[in-house]
Parts: sequence; structure tokens; C-alpha cells
Amino acid sequence: MVRPETPPEPRLRLRLVFAEGVMLGPGKADLLELIGQTGSIAGAGRRMNMSYKRAWSLVEQMNDAFREPLVERSRGGATGGGARLTPAGETVLASYRKLEARTREAGTREIAAIRDMLGPPPGRS
Amino acid sequence: MVRPETPPEPRLRLRLVFAEGVMLGPGKADLLELIGQTGSIAGAGRRMNMSYKRAWSLVEQMNDAFREPLVERSRGGATGGGARLTPAGETVLASYRKLEARTREAGTREIAAIRDMLGPPPGRS
Repeated sequence: MVRPETPPEPRLRLRLVFAEGVMLGPGKADLLELIGQTGSIAGAGRRMNMSYKRAWSLVEQMNDAFREPLVERSRGGATGGGARLTPAGETVLASYRKLEARTREAGTREIAAIRDMLGPPPGRS
Repeated sequence: MVRPETPPEPRLRLRLVFAEGVMLGPGKADLLELIGQTGSIAGAGRRMNMSYKRAWSLVEQMNDAFREPLVERSRGGATGGGARLTPAGETVLASYRKLEARTREAGTREIAAIRDMLGPPPGRS
């Protein structure tokens, strides 16, 4: 097996823990983003290989934790009901994505320092 | 139950995913730090309520992932064998802690924006 000279750019996963059981991390952020894209909690969950029950439970956790709900159901109409992000949901998602970007920017040197130390021992090739 | 006006400062948990199964996050960072403090893998694991087996497995994962080991055993002597961080271990831990600090600094506004939206709905008190 040939290892590349430079390991690929690492993924950064960021989780904010506000209180016992109240947290926001990459899973919830991706779910919000996909609900915005698909207009459906089930659809968003499917894209993440997540059961409908699990997706709903994460949405409920977020809606309960914030002062205003982040996701609302849009019932009836031609589509027979879907879901969308509220303005609060858009704001929370945007702030989280910006936090990720700022971390990547501000931590470029530290991330590279760690990445550059990865790899097989000098003698092994 | 009375909720405080301002929720407490959130904890930030940061994980770097370099490849499938190769990652560095708060658990491994804390373990490295405690090995440095206690001079013992078992002692560090105990402080984290982690089994010796689990602590050892995390150390092996780290030692395998990096070009140089991060932790080395110091056998024999009066203490009958312990463990310590190598210079590579010190460097990785310091870079990770700096990355955490930089994220907190660079993301102050975003973290506050999310935190300030937490809380019970306006009508509930």
C-alpha cells in the first residue's frame, strides 16, 4: 500500500455543548441544512441514512432548546405537508457554518502542524 | 425552576478527522494531558472514569497514527514503570489546545449568537 506524501485535508467536527443534553454539532447542522434543501424532515434524514424517528427526535431537541423553533412543519397544500427552517433556524445554521469557517481559518497552522506529524514511522515504507 | 438570564458559557468540543478511524478529539487530548500529569496511562484513565483497556487502546491508536509515538512507557526504576509524553506527544497536545483557544477567540461572536438564542419560548417562564 502506497501512502500519499501529504495526508488529505482533515475534516473538522465542531460541537457546542450548552448544557447537559443541549448541544449543537455537525449532525444537527447537516440535518438543518438538508431540511432547508429538501423541504422535508424525512427527506433530510434519508440523505443522512438516518431513520425518520431519529431525524424527528433531533428536530424536537433543537426546537425545545431554542427560544423559537428552528424547524416548522408546513402542513397541507399540494405537497401534503413538509418542513422548513424558520428565520431562527437559518440564523443558527449560518452562525454554526461561520464558526466552522473561522475555526478552519484561525487554526490553519495548528491543523497543519498536527496533520504533518501523521504517517508511518520513518523506517517503515 | 428558574433559568438564569444568561446561559453559561458553552463548552466547545473539537474533533479532527484525518482518515477513517484516525481522529483526534477532546477525549484523546484530555488523556494525553492526564498522562503528562500523572505519569501513568492507568492513572490518567481513572481520572476520566475510563477502563485501563480503553485508555490503552486510545494510546495505541494515537501511537499508530503518528510518525513518532505520542506516549512511551518508562519501564523499571523506583516507580516500577509508568508512561510519559514524548516530544511529539507534547507538540500534538499543545497544537490541539491552541486550536481550541483560537476557535474560541475567532468564533466568539458566532458562539454568542447561538447561545443568545437558547432558552424557553417568550411566553413560558
